[in-house]
Amino acid sequence: MNAFLNPPVDDFLAALAAVLGETALVSDPSIAASHSSDWSEAVPTVPGIVVFPRTPQQVAAALEVCGRFHRHVVIQGGLTGLAGGATPREGEIALSLSKLDAIEEIDTVGGTATVQAGVVLEELQRRVEEHDWYFPLDLGARGSCQVGGNAAVNAGGNRVIRFGTMRDMVLGLEVALPDGRLLSMLNRVTKNTTGIDLKHLFIGSEGTLGAITRLVLKLSPKPTNACTALCALPSFDAATRLIRTSRARLPSLSAFEVMWDDFMLAAREMHALRPAFDAPAPVYALIETLGTDEVGERQQLEALLADAIEAGLVTDAVVAQSMDDAQRLWAYRETVGELLSKLKPHAAFDVGVPMAAMERFVDAARTALTQLFPHQRHLFFGHIGDGNLHVLSGPYDSPDDLHRVEELVYRVVGDVGGSISAEHGIGVVKRDFLHHSRSADEMALMRDLKNLIDPAGVLNAGRIL
Amino acid sequence: MNAFLNPPVDDFLAALAAVLGETALVSDPSIAASHSSDWSEAVPTVPGIVVFPRTPQQVAAALEVCGRFHRHVVIQGGLTGLAGGATPREGEIALSLSKLDAIEEIDTVGGTATVQAGVVLEELQRRVEEHDWYFPLDLGARGSCQVGGNAAVNAGGNRVIRFGTMRDMVLGLEVALPDGRLLSMLNRVTKNTTGIDLKHLFIGSEGTLGAITRLVLKLSPKPTNACTALCALPSFDAATRLIRTSRARLPSLSAFEVMWDDFMLAAREMHALRPAFDAPAPVYALIETLGTDEVGERQQLEALLADAIEAGLVTDAVVAQSMDDAQRLWAYRETVGELLSKLKPHAAFDVGVPMAAMERFVDAARTALTQLFPHQRHLFFGHIGDGNLHVLSGPYDSPDDLHRVEELVYRVVGDVGGSISAEHGIGVVKRDFLHHSRSADEMALMRDLKNLIDPAGVLNAGRIL
Repeated sequence: MNAFLNPPVDDFLAALAAVLGETALVSDPSIAASHSSDWSEAVPTVPGIVVFPRTPQQVAAALEVCGRFHRHVVIQGGLTGLAGGATPREGEIALSLSKLDAIEEIDTVGGTATVQAGVVLEELQRRVEEHDWYFPLDLGARGSCQVGGNAAVNAGGNRVIRFGTMRDMVLGLEVALPDGRLLSMLNRVTKNTTGIDLKHLFIGSEGTLGAITRLVLKLSPKPTNACTALCALPSFDAATRLIRTSRARLPSLSAFEVMWDDFMLAAREMHALRPAFDAPAPVYALIETLGTDEVGERQQLEALLADAIEAGLVTDAVVAQSMDDAQRLWAYRETVGELLSKLKPHAAFDVGVPMAAMERFVDAARTALTQLFPHQRHLFFGHIGDGNLHVLSGPYDSPDDLHRVEELVYRVVGDVGGSISAEHGIGVVKRDFLHHSRSADEMALMRDLKNLIDPAGVLNAGRIL
Repeated sequence: MNAFLNPPVDDFLAALAAVLGETALVSDPSIAASHSSDWSEAVPTVPGIVVFPRTPQQVAAALEVCGRFHRHVVIQGGLTGLAGGATPREGEIALSLSKLDAIEEIDTVGGTATVQAGVVLEELQRRVEEHDWYFPLDLGARGSCQVGGNAAVNAGGNRVIRFGTMRDMVLGLEVALPDGRLLSMLNRVTKNTTGIDLKHLFIGSEGTLGAITRLVLKLSPKPTNACTALCALPSFDAATRLIRTSRARLPSLSAFEVMWDDFMLAAREMHALRPAFDAPAPVYALIETLGTDEVGERQQLEALLADAIEAGLVTDAVVAQSMDDAQRLWAYRETVGELLSKLKPHAAFDVGVPMAAMERFVDAARTALTQLFPHQRHLFFGHIGDGNLHVLSGPYDSPDDLHRVEELVYRVVGDVGGSISAEHGIGVVKRDFLHHSRSADEMALMRDLKNLIDPAGVLNAGRIL
């Protein structure tokens, strides 16, 4: 008999209540279903019990109780993930970190923030900006995602080219382990070489090894000025050369977003946006700098664009003259959320592809997709400076078709040595495709690590592997 | 009987020769002794055998043979480490990566280099600069250290404030495991969230889990311009405020080095350097920017300094007008190598201290050191923007005194929540002090990881833990 199927429920609840208090157990579970509007495949099941620990110690104690009673646990943050990792599966206890929402300290001298895992990203950003600091992670879900979840999935977003991914902003972590220990690694300095840097086991492993309870985050000085330009380019090759010269000449470069013409057309249709340029182009680039020197940064950007036009890398360009202008330029890129809804049920990809292979990837994927599904839309865009490409393809009526699209795209990703997930994670929806990006040896080592730290398999079972 | 003490030597050598060829075995072992001139405590022993594999596969095969014959192995790179990690201990086979010195590919589109572990840092830098790319790791040992070793110890250096540590420059790794497998994680994109990011187990773990054989490194566009300034500051508090405003206003900021007056005086004595300023100051800061816009960057730096003088953060400043000028300003900081020699036998520290605690740390450490050892010199300097402080104290005649100095400094580091090694690693010389920076739970997890990946304890035994 599988012990996981027949827990002694009353004893278990009593033990949980003993460590958490009655009020931290919730029997109306609807609040714990995933809010994700973009994960269209699996039907979320609701958990039998949701627990809301109020301290890191309670998180660790709750995990220990679950392990002792052989109950599976799923960790929940802001429920904005796109890979289904936080959605409860049959019989799982949901452990929500929402009540761990304290910003414990903002070190205004060193530029660090010590926070609990359930702090909402946007709230953190607002609070540190009051002290003239800045937390640069930039995601669409910023209003509801939580920093613990950002670390668990190593979130990326628009400004990785300047500030790195979440991993680069995490100096220290505290993690509740499945055996009930609270592992403190609350380092506060950039440089620390004292043995294996254990926090990296937990960043990006999507809660399969432990529940992140507290974080020390690295802040940046707050920028006071943004310059934004939209450029029409004659080719993808021109985009690769423009990004190189932008990196060299714009030290404040904070975003370099590329949109192919298919995406641009769909974005314009979405909101009846006017074309940005008189003539269409095969590729568009949105360039942003963030800094504190308004005059100098605008001059640098304009000089770069003038030279790029002269050199034939750019055929036309618009530089925003105001915040409103900048919003209008970003508007094309930011239709993504609505495009995702419109094309449902869709296949949405966040693949990683080396820049040198990207044009080959886009051509191969687009040709194959168009051949197989001529009546669907296939839209390409992304953060190409980081090798991160998004593909949005849909709508698809049949789950079989969706699966064929996924097989096709991930196979091409594997062919070019790419990654099947650049920033959204594997969760449950990409599990079957992990072998395209990870070797058998890598997957075996991941499994060994899981068995080492969570030998009973209590935590986020069935995610990633 | 301990199997490690009585290997069947002939069979073992035959097995090694079978995977490596005779020429890769060296019986004159003097070349494998540590070159480190700064690690004054331990007396290097020479290994019985040094092996020089020529391919990653041979590294893995050699490790498998050593494991099979119960022989301990020490991995050797450029032998420039300062923690004694690569120095052979009694009975160890030395495995040198020097013959794995191929630069396999420079991707000039994406800005990556795929290299073997034995490539010398400076050689890599020269080669990528031919393609207008730049590898920004900046260490005194650049002429002989190897990139595999840089990754194994997560090297830092002068430019971490802009470019991060070695960890931030490693996109992918290939590692030979103790069981003879060659684990390929040769990722080439910045954003990759496909499960546990296994490469971080090996970066910074000083060869205790595997031998790094190949790396994919992230390049930066080559800067063409440097601006350098030396500033006299009225207090350490002024330095913390100057660094914050420098980070905000100088997007090209590449170094911010702080020297206390005790260091500055010793540096000047060393080479009879003239004082940089008419009046002495308690603290000095060396600021550097690296970029491509000579005029703009100089204007930004000069404007910053003018405002800082106006605000009382800086009492005097010199901006280099030429390369020679810049070298003269760096000369004070770069006397370190000679000071290390002059003060031998010394205690040299590379501790990490949160900036908000640094003044307290310096005061406490200096007071205690001066009280205990009034006839020695105690010099403070460092990369304070990264929370990395160097302390150089000496000379000490007795090993007991040296040990007392270490105990004292590491205890104060522990008191302020700092790190006993910011960039040099633990090796064998800081092993006894690791508990000041890592909790018992962290050390237990490190041990568990070691047992998981190297259950027979073949690799770099006695390092770190």
